[in-house]
Amino acid sequence: MKHYIKHHEWQIIEEGFDPHLNRISESLFSLGNGRMGQRANFEEEYSGETHLGSYVAGVYYPDKTRVGWWKNGYPEYFAKVLNAPSWIGIHLKIGKTSLDLAHCKVQDFRRVLDMKQGTLHRSFTATLRDGKKVKIDATRFCSMADGEIGVIRYSVTPLNFSSSSTITLGIDANVVNKDSNYDEKFWDEVSKESKAGLALVSAQTKKTFFQVITGMTYALTSGGKKLKGIVRASKREKYADNVVQIKLKKGEELVIYKYGVVLSSENHPKAKMTQVARKKLKDILAKGFDKLFADHTDVWAHKWEECDITIDGDVAAQQGIRFNIFQLMQTYTGADERLNIGPKGFTGEKYGGSTYWDTEAYCLPFYLGTSDPKVARNLLVYRYKHLGKAIENGKKLGFKDGAAFYPFVTMNGEECHNEWEITFEEIHRTSAMAYAMRDYIEYTGDRDYLTGFGLEVLIGISRFWNQRVNWSEEKGKYVILGVTGPNEYENNVNNNWYTNYLGSWTLRFTMEAVDFVKKSNPKRYAAITAKINFQEKAEMDKWKHISENMYFPYDPKRNVILQQDGFLDKELIPVKNLKPEDRPLNQKWSWDRILRSCFIKQADVLQGIFLFEDDFDLETVRRNFDFYEPMTVHESSLSPCVHVILASKLGYKEQAYNFYLRTARLDLDDYNNDTEDGCHITSMAGTWMSLVKGFGGMRVKEGKLHFTPYIPDQWKSYSFRLEFRGRVVKVKVSKDKTDVVLESGQPMEVMVGGKVVGLG
Amino acid sequence: MKHYIKHHEWQIIEEGFDPHLNRISESLFSLGNGRMGQRANFEEEYSGETHLGSYVAGVYYPDKTRVGWWKNGYPEYFAKVLNAPSWIGIHLKIGKTSLDLAHCKVQDFRRVLDMKQGTLHRSFTATLRDGKKVKIDATRFCSMADGEIGVIRYSVTPLNFSSSSTITLGIDANVVNKDSNYDEKFWDEVSKESKAGLALVSAQTKKTFFQVITGMTYALTSGGKKLKGIVRASKREKYADNVVQIKLKKGEELVIYKYGVVLSSENHPKAKMTQVARKKLKDILAKGFDKLFADHTDVWAHKWEECDITIDGDVAAQQGIRFNIFQLMQTYTGADERLNIGPKGFTGEKYGGSTYWDTEAYCLPFYLGTSDPKVARNLLVYRYKHLGKAIENGKKLGFKDGAAFYPFVTMNGEECHNEWEITFEEIHRTSAMAYAMRDYIEYTGDRDYLTGFGLEVLIGISRFWNQRVNWSEEKGKYVILGVTGPNEYENNVNNNWYTNYLGSWTLRFTMEAVDFVKKSNPKRYAAITAKINFQEKAEMDKWKHISENMYFPYDPKRNVILQQDGFLDKELIPVKNLKPEDRPLNQKWSWDRILRSCFIKQADVLQGIFLFEDDFDLETVRRNFDFYEPMTVHESSLSPCVHVILASKLGYKEQAYNFYLRTARLDLDDYNNDTEDGCHITSMAGTWMSLVKGFGGMRVKEGKLHFTPYIPDQWKSYSFRLEFRGRVVKVKVSKDKTDVVLESGQPMEVMVGGKVVGLG
Repeated sequence: MKHYIKHHEWQIIEEGFDPHLNRISESLFSLGNGRMGQRANFEEEYSGETHLGSYVAGVYYPDKTRVGWWKNGYPEYFAKVLNAPSWIGIHLKIGKTSLDLAHCKVQDFRRVLDMKQGTLHRSFTATLRDGKKVKIDATRFCSMADGEIGVIRYSVTPLNFSSSSTITLGIDANVVNKDSNYDEKFWDEVSKESKAGLALVSAQTKKTFFQVITGMTYALTSGGKKLKGIVRASKREKYADNVVQIKLKKGEELVIYKYGVVLSSENHPKAKMTQVARKKLKDILAKGFDKLFADHTDVWAHKWEECDITIDGDVAAQQGIRFNIFQLMQTYTGADERLNIGPKGFTGEKYGGSTYWDTEAYCLPFYLGTSDPKVARNLLVYRYKHLGKAIENGKKLGFKDGAAFYPFVTMNGEECHNEWEITFEEIHRTSAMAYAMRDYIEYTGDRDYLTGFGLEVLIGISRFWNQRVNWSEEKGKYVILGVTGPNEYENNVNNNWYTNYLGSWTLRFTMEAVDFVKKSNPKRYAAITAKINFQEKAEMDKWKHISENMYFPYDPKRNVILQQDGFLDKELIPVKNLKPEDRPLNQKWSWDRILRSCFIKQADVLQGIFLFEDDFDLETVRRNFDFYEPMTVHESSLSPCVHVILASKLGYKEQAYNFYLRTARLDLDDYNNDTEDGCHITSMAGTWMSLVKGFGGMRVKEGKLHFTPYIPDQWKSYSFRLEFRGRVVKVKVSKDKTDVVLESGQPMEVMVGGKVVGLG
Repeated sequence: MKHYIKHHEWQIIEEGFDPHLNRISESLFSLGNGRMGQRANFEEEYSGETHLGSYVAGVYYPDKTRVGWWKNGYPEYFAKVLNAPSWIGIHLKIGKTSLDLAHCKVQDFRRVLDMKQGTLHRSFTATLRDGKKVKIDATRFCSMADGEIGVIRYSVTPLNFSSSSTITLGIDANVVNKDSNYDEKFWDEVSKESKAGLALVSAQTKKTFFQVITGMTYALTSGGKKLKGIVRASKREKYADNVVQIKLKKGEELVIYKYGVVLSSENHPKAKMTQVARKKLKDILAKGFDKLFADHTDVWAHKWEECDITIDGDVAAQQGIRFNIFQLMQTYTGADERLNIGPKGFTGEKYGGSTYWDTEAYCLPFYLGTSDPKVARNLLVYRYKHLGKAIENGKKLGFKDGAAFYPFVTMNGEECHNEWEITFEEIHRTSAMAYAMRDYIEYTGDRDYLTGFGLEVLIGISRFWNQRVNWSEEKGKYVILGVTGPNEYENNVNNNWYTNYLGSWTLRFTMEAVDFVKKSNPKRYAAITAKINFQEKAEMDKWKHISENMYFPYDPKRNVILQQDGFLDKELIPVKNLKPEDRPLNQKWSWDRILRSCFIKQADVLQGIFLFEDDFDLETVRRNFDFYEPMTVHESSLSPCVHVILASKLGYKEQAYNFYLRTARLDLDDYNNDTEDGCHITSMAGTWMSLVKGFGGMRVKEGKLHFTPYIPDQWKSYSFRLEFRGRVVKVKVSKDKTDVVLESGQPMEVMVGGKVVGLG
């Protein structure tokens, strides 16, 4: 854990320059706008520790798989989000010395991420080796108003000298991925152009042939007047720039406005991209910084109106929740159904930037609660569009007859993860797609989603389960062997309760969906059954038999669910008995030791109880929580939020608050010692759930919003807003009361603490 | 399976040239002499499918580990046997055309491995593209009389032309490993030298700094007369040669004698190696082909006298067993205790050429039966010398207090395998070292081995088991969780019976060893306990408690041992119900499907029953064999031999014979479709065991040889010899009788079919 980030309600603040923290800060202060984004790398040259990262949504590379021993069924490639050409470079050479914070005395360094405005500020005074002192003040944003635009205002004030200087404004496509499996570069240059006031590089990814044009233009002013310098261009591979010779005068502020555009062939015909980029650069130069800034901050103001959460009396908690919301909003806007939410968003390369079940299990509720329903719907449709690939993916592993096995990690629907114990065996994820439908339908009431899209997916998934179970003569039940549950600190276990439960539920849910579509739209139903050759009676009879005869491991002595067969053979030791030097286990223990221990990486039985809470009475929840929570090390960022919600339900207020802080400030305080790789974007949605479903007790039951709110002792009040079926509802919880207000939309009833409250 | 190898009692014969079979033949026709060896690559250039491979015993490279996702505890490197500089190249250019079988019409191609003489012959007539016809006749051997010498007689007869020609006699150190993880080259050039009649390259491995000098000299004769051509040398990296210009005359045979030397810094001071190489080349050139050949074949004649097995009436079986013995004798001579037996010997790169538990479980009995006891002893001492590394290896995985965890794969005692389910979890291998001691002591009577070396190793291994078990409150027994047994088609299972049994036995065996050493050599015992801080009472009390309270999975209904917990949840399907297109499973099924199936890669419960057969009555053996064998796919080369032995014991003669053919001809008939990677050297020792322990029923009990021989219906008779406690015993089994003859040594009694027979 680290505590160098200053607490502030709306800002993330770093004061003083510590090069060892730079890679963490680069993650935390990242910017994005759903279409593109970047780590908080410096504009000027920097020869110290840094992890350069610029990303363009949807642009990935299928890197050749790297494994120790090949196993049948491994995917040929591991798709990864690409480090894309960078538009931010503003290199400054004063006399003969480059400005490089690794070789300066740095004073008054301050980096601020203004979450309200969506801007990154950085200011400092640098003393060069030759004694020249220069003050820098930089502001940067990726426009929320136009996802293809990035803007920098970079101010330079010579404090104790005048000197001829060189400013290099570059576009650099000669970039690498740190996680490249074989040190390859993934971009080819298509064309480039440098002329006075403009630099463009068109680059194309190998194999996938995504084309990205990155361009820039700029303006220089001093004392409010436009400046011109002598302009020339460098010649380097995959690189274009303008090198401006200019005279810096002591005490006079020079302001560089750099305007970048990033266009992807996903959104433009390749043949027209250069033309569009040139025009766009011309337009934004004409518009100028102030107008672009205003357009950008307007969007943020509107976003915050929709989804802000306030916490009064606890700045750390307030900063945490806003940081989580801010990052989620930067990462995915829901505008494009081809996109999804990578685990690191635009903040790093790790985990390949691909789609995991995190989207369905954690992110969906956030977007349901805070955005227009079509955003959540787009997330579902994303998987509908991948159904064919999911069936193919199943086929590669020997499943047949249209069994849909959704990949664990994907960019385009194909599996691209390569650990057998996860890729082949963490099968519960394929039902996350089914659960997401239930979640979506319950929240929005849009049951017709099943008719248009959902049913086909559900039948595919149920066909998978049908083939994946086997009948145990010994148990006289269906069993599911050789799986990895959500708790990845167990591998290749038999009868993981969560998996068995979810599989069994999926079959029932699919049968209900079949009935619904059949009754509500017989024509469409007939079309679907014909299309996918659905043998209603035979398939449903089998599903019914499986779902009614599934085996669930249980300990009658303790009266608790068993995470999997054989769990009780372990030495059951509470986490508190572990030595501090053994934590985190995944960095200290060898894998086999972790596997045979009782320690739980993330909620597993409790994840199931959370998802299906209506199936369990409070005492069952309590017994299982009391049994499993003490053995849980929460070394997955997805674990604490589930525990906040269940602890809240059980009235374990202190625990809930501590878990909340852990999820809300996971990255800000670098809990797991890995923020330098990027922020844990998908688990940030879990933070939102923690507050809204945990403290606020929000549920939707039979089309109605329910709240059972309470307030942590440390807070004075908190509030959140929900988008719900055409309304906006604001909930404010203070020590003594809960106000639920209808901010817009038709009147409706909600339940607060078990009582009906009429709104509007 | 393939059947292109002609059956012959003493030879492996390929007739006709099929380029698609070339890589298989390169494996089968490999040569070696314990110090060096090589695949049967052509002397001349060959641009078709080939896998070049020359190997020098003990010379390895720690290649950077390649894994998908790093797990704590993985070794930093994967040691692999190195493809070493090649001395065999004789490139022939006739006029302007190179002799390259990929671009010729090839007639009368014949490749013969003469196992009696240890020579590789190859002859063919090639028609070049320009119509020139040339006859080639090549003989090659790696001298068994001097392990640093290789010899080629290469005869060239122009059939329809005379032409000026170029003969290039090279030493090529610019070689690669196909299994290099990152396409690196592993050799650096130290020096090279080309002068008339001599070429030398001194090359050094990166990181490990093994130096190998490879040199050659040669003689050319025609019509019995020595020839001289015009000599020059090429200039290429890591390469030296003589290029001889010569006139080939129609109908006149030109014979090239190429003499190679291969010296390793493992056996010579680096500073003197060049000098030794030069002298050696001079000496062997003076000695000449015939004398070198005679020295070589003398050694083979002696070897065959010691260890030949004859089978009368079944040429396929005879060829099979001799091929197995031949390859084993080529691979390991037992002369050097630093060496061991790589799974592919000198026939390929696969599995890194390192030491596996195959040595103890399969090879040791072969060398015990056929060689001086010091050969087997050297194999034990090899592990004794690695004890420190085994303790280190344990430490890396969190074990302490001197727990010895022998590596799964090693070159120098360090683990260099990187699949968690094997490396970390296939823990039974650490007790293979203990079992080997028992085997050795039973066979040789040399119980004092415990005093000098064995006890320390045993205590180390027992300390490992002591820490690896845990007490299950649920079962009231000790359990061993998260292991992989010998059947690697199960991973990370709980309570693998074989592992639990072997662990428990090891503790008892160690306690017996403690008692023996304590009584027989109290001084040495005191020294050992002091050295390794052995807390006799405390440690032994715990060991006793564990060994008496170990849990063994069992099915009371079927009255069979259970391979592991949960085995009965599987669908129990016999292999015969599998579709042919699903075989071999490891090439057709995804890994998860294999894991959750009942199918067994290799003997597991049966392996345990084989090792500890005196612990089980015949009906128990039968029940377990009848239960497990039908589910066994034998996709490990180490499986059929155990089944021959148990089937023989049970009187399942037809099964035993079929398993025997499978093990004896595994490579010759390419059963597992992988001979192109190299031959299955270690499992060849299993073939020997199949015959001697299976058909011959050989056992040693209380210092006495026992035989319960029978003869497969397909055979007329068979015979084998045993080295046993200073005697040579020959056993000949025919349809109606068994002759046991003492060929040398003191009189003794043996048991044949339960009756005492006096010998000598």
